[in-house]
Amino acid sequence: MSEGYTVAILGATGAVGTRMIQQLAASTIPVAKLKLLASQRSAGKTLTFKGQPVTVEEAKPESFDGVDIVLASAGGSVSKKFLPEAVKRGAVCVDNTSAFRMEPDVPLVVPEVNENVLPRHHGIIANPNCSTIMMMVALEPIRQAVGLKQIIVSTYQAASGAGQSALNELYSEAQDYLDHKDMQAEIFPTKGEPKHYPLAFNLLPQIDVLEDNYYSHEEWKMIHETKKIMLDDMDAPDIKVTATCVRVPVPISHGESIWIDTGDPDATVDELRAAIEAAPGVVLQDDPAHQVYPQPINATGKRETFVGRIRADLENPGAFNLWAVSDNLLKGAAWNTVQIAERLVAQKLV
Amino acid sequence: MSEGYTVAILGATGAVGTRMIQQLAASTIPVAKLKLLASQRSAGKTLTFKGQPVTVEEAKPESFDGVDIVLASAGGSVSKKFLPEAVKRGAVCVDNTSAFRMEPDVPLVVPEVNENVLPRHHGIIANPNCSTIMMMVALEPIRQAVGLKQIIVSTYQAASGAGQSALNELYSEAQDYLDHKDMQAEIFPTKGEPKHYPLAFNLLPQIDVLEDNYYSHEEWKMIHETKKIMLDDMDAPDIKVTATCVRVPVPISHGESIWIDTGDPDATVDELRAAIEAAPGVVLQDDPAHQVYPQPINATGKRETFVGRIRADLENPGAFNLWAVSDNLLKGAAWNTVQIAERLVAQKLV
Repeated sequence: MSEGYTVAILGATGAVGTRMIQQLAASTIPVAKLKLLASQRSAGKTLTFKGQPVTVEEAKPESFDGVDIVLASAGGSVSKKFLPEAVKRGAVCVDNTSAFRMEPDVPLVVPEVNENVLPRHHGIIANPNCSTIMMMVALEPIRQAVGLKQIIVSTYQAASGAGQSALNELYSEAQDYLDHKDMQAEIFPTKGEPKHYPLAFNLLPQIDVLEDNYYSHEEWKMIHETKKIMLDDMDAPDIKVTATCVRVPVPISHGESIWIDTGDPDATVDELRAAIEAAPGVVLQDDPAHQVYPQPINATGKRETFVGRIRADLENPGAFNLWAVSDNLLKGAAWNTVQIAERLVAQKLV
Repeated sequence: MSEGYTVAILGATGAVGTRMIQQLAASTIPVAKLKLLASQRSAGKTLTFKGQPVTVEEAKPESFDGVDIVLASAGGSVSKKFLPEAVKRGAVCVDNTSAFRMEPDVPLVVPEVNENVLPRHHGIIANPNCSTIMMMVALEPIRQAVGLKQIIVSTYQAASGAGQSALNELYSEAQDYLDHKDMQAEIFPTKGEPKHYPLAFNLLPQIDVLEDNYYSHEEWKMIHETKKIMLDDMDAPDIKVTATCVRVPVPISHGESIWIDTGDPDATVDELRAAIEAAPGVVLQDDPAHQVYPQPINATGKRETFVGRIRADLENPGAFNLWAVSDNLLKGAAWNTVQIAERLVAQKLV
């Protein structure tokens, strides 16, 4: 493959798809040919890759003939329809949707944590949920340095996690609010649900559908994906996880308030800071004396996850609070997907 | 006192002060005379109480001559200067600032939780911090019904908690952002601090100053005020508390994601729901099948604290997650202060 790979991006025109094009251009993957695939509605549009125009084509099974790598972010049903066709034609697919994440033979990968499971793939590798990925990047260095027994997380999730049209809705609601007009809610909390509420200047404690045990599906993902990523093929004991997911009126970059029990009553804030400083993909922003801590406006556009406000729980030795922020469209989606493809290439698995 | 009380509001022109006037007008307290006190800068302004104009006077020690009840919300240093003068002149003061909260002989009161400590006052009763009050109202029914051993809280706090000028800054920043202009940050995260960051479309994990153990003073208040309110003069065992406080771009009404360990492994969601439904000052908004849960836009202007999204921690029997929202300017400040005064009158303690 000395001349490079034929790469297809499925869902190329969305908030994540357009960022996949940018991240792929900035990656180490040698790209011989790029195919941009989308629905019929978007076919014919022209996007740019490394300065060259590329016309968007309608995705069909035969679109994947001759494709080596597929990066998919067009929704779960689209992935379910097309990725098996792509695999049949010899492609390796990195899927940013939730379609295959919990399938036992599909690796669910955050490269900083479990790149080692990539060789087990059968043509599809899943990208975890955005809020899960950043938590894994923040906590894996701590798990390795001092241990990890329990996670209690509350999320502060950005509007763009629900797509470009949702982000536009946040902006139009905000302008209506400032103009003393009624806000028009048609997307949040979740497009397919019967009721819609404004997100601008508000908080919505529902992301994805609410399930029979009262957890939202987003919360379910954080709990179960964490276990699959951290415990699969790793010499780790069980980790308890619970989550509360809240949408906040921020355009891009999620925040997470995370309480952990390391299980080591002698663990210190300095040890946690040192572990994070030494780890890949994560940046320590923790200087309380100079008001330095992670903020969405600073994290947006960056590939890293930022961690700060690390504090010992004053009454539970070995437990800590911390605050993490990461660009949900990059590390939470486009970059983690391209990064998995980079690691597949580096490991000669494609 | 059959003709009613002489009441003074100190800090009458602020976001909380103006709401104290409204809450007092709607209270059961018979008011014979109302004095509105503020700084020299605001003296001469005219505000309205029960349809009658009242002129704001500059606060001086002698302003408190003949005053029965003082409601104070003009900042800690103003309370420290004037409330001892008011007490000397025979007044009973309910203070919304943090000036006296942790003094051993000053009752710190949320009427739904510990009205019983009011008789111990020596002229000053303290109103707790806004984020503490709503958490106490939400958790006291659960503590009474099934127990409470540990609290881990992450807050989503509204801009108005930092005052009217801070709220104005959120709005002007939001308009600048929508107009693609640079945002001008002069107040957030905390007025007296050297660095300022935009709050609009952002998240700021600093409320009040950051202290030597890396906790913010707001987090310190939630931890220590909770213990004083729930454990003082109550037959309760110790309760562990830890907190992460985050400012969010919402004008009014705080949200809180609260994890609790009740200590009762047999406790159920239904028991918690029933306890909240039966308790005063708190409203259960928890119908996942119909997307019913607390939201700031619905809580604003109401006296109650709203609780929903109650879920059992799936791996820790007896532990639960819940989501609470309350108007930080009413139950978090003006209403709780006036409510304490109502209870003082009802208990004949003034």
